Amino acid sequence: MADGDIYLGANQYGKAECRLVRITRDTPVHQIEDLNVTSQLRGDFSAAHLTGDNSLVVATDTQKNTVYAFAKECGVGSPEALLLKLGEHFVSSFDWIEGGRWEAESFAWERITAGGAPHDHSFVRKGQEVRTAVVQRYGGDVHVLAGLKDCIVLKSTGSEFHGFPQDRYTSLVETDDRIMATSVTAWWRYTDLTIDFNARYEAIKALMLEQFAQLHSLALQQTLFAMGKAVLETFPDVAEVKLSCPNKHHFVVDLEPFGLDNPNEVFYAADRPYGLIQATIQREGTPEAPEAWATVPAFA
Amino acid sequence: MADGDIYLGANQYGKAECRLVRITRDTPVHQIEDLNVTSQLRGDFSAAHLTGDNSLVVATDTQKNTVYAFAKECGVGSPEALLLKLGEHFVSSFDWIEGGRWEAESFAWERITAGGAPHDHSFVRKGQEVRTAVVQRYGGDVHVLAGLKDCIVLKSTGSEFHGFPQDRYTSLVETDDRIMATSVTAWWRYTDLTIDFNARYEAIKALMLEQFAQLHSLALQQTLFAMGKAVLETFPDVAEVKLSCPNKHHFVVDLEPFGLDNPNEVFYAADRPYGLIQATIQREGTPEAPEAWATVPAFA
Amino acid sequence: MADGDIYLGANQYGKAECRLVRITRDTPVHQIEDLNVTSQLRGDFSAAHLTGDNSLVVATDTQKNTVYAFAKECGVGSPEALLLKLGEHFVSSFDWIEGGRWEAESFAWERITAGGAPHDHSFVRKGQEVRTAVVQRYGGDVHVLAGLKDCIVLKSTGSEFHGFPQDRYTSLVETDDRIMATSVTAWWRYTDLTIDFNARYEAIKALMLEQFAQLHSLALQQTLFAMGKAVLETFPDVAEVKLSCPNKHHFVVDLEPFGLDNPNEVFYAADRPYGLIQATIQREGTPEAPEAWATVPAFA
Amino acid sequence: MADGDIYLGANQYGKAECRLVRITRDTPVHQIEDLNVTSQLRGDFSAAHLTGDNSLVVATDTQKNTVYAFAKECGVGSPEALLLKLGEHFVSSFDWIEGGRWEAESFAWERITAGGAPHDHSFVRKGQEVRTAVVQRYGGDVHVLAGLKDCIVLKSTGSEFHGFPQDRYTSLVETDDRIMATSVTAWWRYTDLTIDFNARYEAIKALMLEQFAQLHSLALQQTLFAMGKAVLETFPDVAEVKLSCPNKHHFVVDLEPFGLDNPNEVFYAADRPYGLIQATIQREGTPEAPEAWATVPAFA
Repeated sequence: MADGDIYLGANQYGKAECRLVRITRDTPVHQIEDLNVTSQLRGDFSAAHLTGDNSLVVATDTQKNTVYAFAKECGVGSPEALLLKLGEHFVSSFDWIEGGRWEAESFAWERITAGGAPHDHSFVRKGQEVRTAVVQRYGGDVHVLAGLKDCIVLKSTGSEFHGFPQDRYTSLVETDDRIMATSVTAWWRYTDLTIDFNARYEAIKALMLEQFAQLHSLALQQTLFAMGKAVLETFPDVAEVKLSCPNKHHFVVDLEPFGLDNPNEVFYAADRPYGLIQATIQREGTPEAPEAWATVPAFA
Repeated sequence: MADGDIYLGANQYGKAECRLVRITRDTPVHQIEDLNVTSQLRGDFSAAHLTGDNSLVVATDTQKNTVYAFAKECGVGSPEALLLKLGEHFVSSFDWIEGGRWEAESFAWERITAGGAPHDHSFVRKGQEVRTAVVQRYGGDVHVLAGLKDCIVLKSTGSEFHGFPQDRYTSLVETDDRIMATSVTAWWRYTDLTIDFNARYEAIKALMLEQFAQLHSLALQQTLFAMGKAVLETFPDVAEVKLSCPNKHHFVVDLEPFGLDNPNEVFYAADRPYGLIQATIQREGTPEAPEAWATVPAFA
Repeated sequence: MADGDIYLGANQYGKAECRLVRITRDTPVHQIEDLNVTSQLRGDFSAAHLTGDNSLVVATDTQKNTVYAFAKECGVGSPEALLLKLGEHFVSSFDWIEGGRWEAESFAWERITAGGAPHDHSFVRKGQEVRTAVVQRYGGDVHVLAGLKDCIVLKSTGSEFHGFPQDRYTSLVETDDRIMATSVTAWWRYTDLTIDFNARYEAIKALMLEQFAQLHSLALQQTLFAMGKAVLETFPDVAEVKLSCPNKHHFVVDLEPFGLDNPNEVFYAADRPYGLIQATIQREGTPEAPEAWATVPAFA
Repeated sequence: MADGDIYLGANQYGKAECRLVRITRDTPVHQIEDLNVTSQLRGDFSAAHLTGDNSLVVATDTQKNTVYAFAKECGVGSPEALLLKLGEHFVSSFDWIEGGRWEAESFAWERITAGGAPHDHSFVRKGQEVRTAVVQRYGGDVHVLAGLKDCIVLKSTGSEFHGFPQDRYTSLVETDDRIMATSVTAWWRYTDLTIDFNARYEAIKALMLEQFAQLHSLALQQTLFAMGKAVLETFPDVAEVKLSCPNKHHFVVDLEPFGLDNPNEVFYAADRPYGLIQATIQREGTPEAPEAWATVPAFA
């Protein structure tokens, strides 16, 4: 290629947001798995981009069909397990597919109580958070990321914020008691791909929430670090944790003009703007894996 | 007024979506109430509309301030209780205010588990549904509506659909086993305004979910009616129930081209279009109250 | 029926949000029509609700098929025209269908400029607003409502707000120059169903925007009334206009702490809460039609 | 640090989504600039994360104040210009701030026509797309990315898709005439930071739309490459282009069961799943700048 020539750089393509509900009905007590699966392939797709030659383009429709067929043939088990199988399939089935990215959101359900007992086949969406997972493959290198999003937490005390620098544009008042609220987006990377992904997910989520609750916080940054640190200390097979947390501001309403005091009882929950804190927590000696994080949205 | 003259008809105005978080911190075990409150007033506001004379226009900003001040002075207690107090205040404070509409969404939280126990002041959003309430006043007539929305339920069997008419445009295949899923929006009207609104809400929600679970359904219409009927039979002080339920279609994926059977195990969850079933369930002898329902969205 | 018996009240059902794109390709210069159509039927559907007997339930899938088939057989022409034909079809095809509600959102496109000229078959979404329409039928009575939503307008001066009542909870400062911004939702009712609905829509939209621009406003209420009045005065076949307009607050940022004045130049655009002004503008002597407005969302 | 120690990796923090409306009112013909600005800082913030020591944490509230103050002191001019000034300010004002990320969305308005002419101070949101920009600083290294999103385009013919590989899971039928529609998200990187960013933005947008229109497309990949290539060929100071385009499927409705043919006239516009094509188009000899793209969402 000559200097100045235009060429195709990094690229990937596939089918996004295949909404998959898998019912296991071997017994009258049904199980439900509810996912939103995206499959994207990587390889040398120059011909399609340059001349519209699709002879190497495994159709996005085919990728979708494969998602549903695998859900039948292999079941789901865990989002990570399904994504790993999809990745293995595409890379081993087509010589020219060098890797890809497989992603899933998972939605939790709980059983409806009927006649005093959990019902066999009726469910209500739990909705506390959305569980997420990404599998990245580059040839034989396989990375598994797991995470969660839209997990909204709040503590009504036990949070301070003061001691920040003052400049010409500083008008914020220091506080030693405020509401701290955020919607946690977290991602972590597993180095052991043989674990029970479902149990581990629940344990990590519980651990992070517990840290959020227990730390008397001087900065949202401190809370993020504590949440990530607890995960790394407890689970040696987690390589690193990335957290992105909006500071969902709750402002104490000034009721003095109306002759009322307001000792942190009545708050206005604001929408925008909001603080945005993003941090990676790592373990010394664990090799980084930048390609594991390629195209995983919105992180430091 | 002469024929053809243009005049002001029905109107209302106010402040919408005052996001209010109320912390009760009398003891170290904090309580949280999280609401989205809208206040709208009705009366003769012709002058504002015709000439921009605001002398009778209680500012929407004032309405907002009142919401926050009342949350301090009276607490919340229940969304219905707060809305009733707001309505009473505006109608009794300003001669020319003849009535209005006060609405609240409420968001549920549960305590984070820390150290094996529910934490005193740390919470995670529960998010199974949004609770709703509307108080309408027309002079001394007061109506209280309560409801819920975004309550997503699914049963993986126990639902059939067949026997429908066939015409030129009919292509749907009959089924005696399908997934039935919906996002319940429900409203009901109380005739007794002295009840424990929080306890009643929980009981009605549980009852409707139980009916959804237990009824072997031949039509989503049948399920709606059963849900509403159970509420009316159990609670004589509920005058009527209105339900609006999308039929969130889950299509069995045809895996036969791939050599796989699919006995209702793998489903594609569709977005649009969707069925939309809306019904009112009433009790003979209970007077209707059309004005209670004015400007409550989207119902038959 | 005995006192206390539970019975089925008002109800309707159908298929919502059939996304329909209709291309007219009789010549190389294609035309595009892009709609979101909802069809709902009314009649005596007690059997379905009470016992799950679907013998009268024209399937929502059939309603969807009919929407697409009619788009082929009759074309679209205008949203109102398509909805009228659908209503006529269902009421005349099934004895027991007494009426219904047909709704459409329409999305505007403009041609992409290529080689200096509008392209024959390539379009970009215009997106200034969403056009809306509802046809209601009760037996032979037919009502046509048209409207728009998500039409965001702003004037950077020419808006005042003062003279409002002062009470204990009033803290708003009067202003004689503010930004006025809103997202217009409007509905109007036609009494002549033979007009050119597309041309009329454009004329009414333009007229309302012009009024918004030209009126020096002392209250958003005054602006709403002027917008509706202009429509009624110009078009005798419009019976009434309903407007619902959030007051999208733009607050002047206080830059004084930073040594800067701010003569209405830098604004913070707030999300929530917001004012909400809703009004009906009517013409003396024109009969009202409450049933035309049944289940049209969110209006006074 | 010892092996296994937990430490803070990459991080950034700031204030997100400062909604800024800037009116220029030097003459009666007002100008409006409407942005959504995010400011995030990078540097050594270990103390805040590890111990809650905020002595280096320039408050997110201060960052917000600075955004608004700069909009007054310097005006906006272009999103890129404002972001560059903010970056320069923070890096030069605080020794320990090593860099950061400043982002803006911009919303276009057009004048309302009143009395046959564009109005001086009344506007309606144009809404064809959202313009985006990111400035990244790492010490003295400054990168400027510009882009757009939510730009929905469609061509009703001139698009084929065939010749793709067939495997066990392939069921897609080949087509030589289909609707091609997408919502373009594009980012490009400028190497010359002295250009007229507004004029350049308009030129690049127009060029990409024109390519979309003019290319007879055999694959959405081919269209993406052509769009990026045209930009790189026309503007030497653009280093690379990244495109992320969902394939918004429009399915020809099968009307044969209803006795109707459908020669690509009536389409069902689907929501999910959708194809997702992402590509980078580059120029040989232009050095890459991976850090320019850090934390810019969702790209190959």
